[in-house]
Amino acid sequence: MEIYLDCMPCFLRQGLDTARLITDDTSIHEQIVRDILKLAHTMDLSQSPPAIAQKIHQRIRQLTGIEDPYAPYKRQHNEFALKLLEKLQSVVDQSDNPLETAVRLAIAGNIIDLGVKTTISDTDIQKTIEASLKAPFAHEIVEALRADIQHAQTILYLADNAGEIVLDRLLLGLLPAEKVIVAVKGAPIINDATMEDAEQAGITQTYRVIDNGSDAPGTILDDCSDPFQKCFEQADLVIAKGQGNYETLSAVDKNVYFILKAKCPVIATDLGCDIGQMILKKSNAFSNAQPLIKRRA
Amino acid sequence: MEIYLDCMPCFLRQGLDTARLITDDTSIHEQIVRDILKLAHTMDLSQSPPAIAQKIHQRIRQLTGIEDPYAPYKRQHNEFALKLLEKLQSVVDQSDNPLETAVRLAIAGNIIDLGVKTTISDTDIQKTIEASLKAPFAHEIVEALRADIQHAQTILYLADNAGEIVLDRLLLGLLPAEKVIVAVKGAPIINDATMEDAEQAGITQTYRVIDNGSDAPGTILDDCSDPFQKCFEQADLVIAKGQGNYETLSAVDKNVYFILKAKCPVIATDLGCDIGQMILKKSNAFSNAQPLIKRRA
Repeated sequence: MEIYLDCMPCFLRQGLDTARLITDDTSIHEQIVRDILKLAHTMDLSQSPPAIAQKIHQRIRQLTGIEDPYAPYKRQHNEFALKLLEKLQSVVDQSDNPLETAVRLAIAGNIIDLGVKTTISDTDIQKTIEASLKAPFAHEIVEALRADIQHAQTILYLADNAGEIVLDRLLLGLLPAEKVIVAVKGAPIINDATMEDAEQAGITQTYRVIDNGSDAPGTILDDCSDPFQKCFEQADLVIAKGQGNYETLSAVDKNVYFILKAKCPVIATDLGCDIGQMILKKSNAFSNAQPLIKRRA
Repeated sequence: MEIYLDCMPCFLRQGLDTARLITDDTSIHEQIVRDILKLAHTMDLSQSPPAIAQKIHQRIRQLTGIEDPYAPYKRQHNEFALKLLEKLQSVVDQSDNPLETAVRLAIAGNIIDLGVKTTISDTDIQKTIEASLKAPFAHEIVEALRADIQHAQTILYLADNAGEIVLDRLLLGLLPAEKVIVAVKGAPIINDATMEDAEQAGITQTYRVIDNGSDAPGTILDDCSDPFQKCFEQADLVIAKGQGNYETLSAVDKNVYFILKAKCPVIATDLGCDIGQMILKKSNAFSNAQPLIKRRA
């Protein structure tokens, strides 16, 4: 996905929000805003939005010396999602179509994203979960995903945010655990899930979890570690959560299913959908669009 | 009002919106965004938001050679408001409290502001007018304004935007025309009203209209012409429309009544009100807070 100039105001707001999480000192807020403006004006705008966000947040960390400003919020979101898990697991278990319900709830989990909206209430999360179970949905893509899950040898699951990663367990629970690798970010970036979140979410006990070696809020393959790149290359099915993964992987020729909620106008325009719409989408850039079963036959 | 860092993302969005009004050439959009970023990172952030916006829009005009990107929209908004005028005039005439109703409708007119929201539909405008007649309102300030109008020798009415200036006629019609001076901007800035709009609105036939000599989207006294500054000094009552005038005049020791709708979180925080709230407010900075009748006695 090419850069959209509309992201710039959003980067600035995000930087300012992060600065305010770190300190009440308005002179530091001002310094951070000035620094983002300076950095952004000479930036290569053909990079993906997560690549720009990565550089902005690296600079904020340099300026403040705070490695993980969102740490307490990530722990809170995980805890909150863990409290919901049992109830939501029974919703999946009792569903006529557990896979679709799990995908829906995996999207609902994607609302827990401080990158787009700085604060989010427990009530908002509850409402989103309820709405996500009712919203219109692409049933045929669910069936395509079901077939690909059935025939895949290796499934790479790209996690997105803390909190959300807990609800990912609902979908992960329907995948053959021995074939699944879950990937988290290599270092803190906004509220993206890292290994610590995967542990808190209870994912590491059941699944192989790797980090991608990168601190971008998405999956910029060139920026990822060699082991991650190898995993990505070898996986015959990738399930990618959230906007950041869509922005960075939508042009990659790979069998990726994107699972996200379109939260901003830029993404909604790119997807040709309304803001707030729930998306399960097979990559347009994948050159071999046949289901795995046909490709292997 | 001091600068708020939260305005920065808004300036960027506004600059981008303006760039898109001027041309479809995305390389020019990018150039304008880069230029705003460059300009903003070294800017004196203790200036008022309208002072920053003024510099940004001056730069956009320099870069594009387009003096008045909003011209067609301003004409349209005036035309639309003119169609509403007769009906709204009868609402004022039939009201139990014509002054309060006219102030309410003058605030409703303030929604027609492309500086905050780039496009606005006729339906939105109709809805705002209906809501403005019902919203809670500070009756005692209406009475203070009534007393000050009655006893003022010179009333300076600071117009805000095109379209809005047409609905200002409802309030202007309740003022003694011979004591009123209406001021518009000295040159195009966003969709602020200039002399051309005052003419189209039918204000110039009845009232003395001057321009303030400035192209800031507010009233930065030091940036205004000497004749305007003299008018401002001599007026014993100033009625100031819109956010830009509040941002630039709220700290000036003058008998100003601000009439606006609080459209953004920064202004709402400063005013201690909710976003969207209708405001009629006598300046806190005015050192002689007594009504004119008592001051003259």
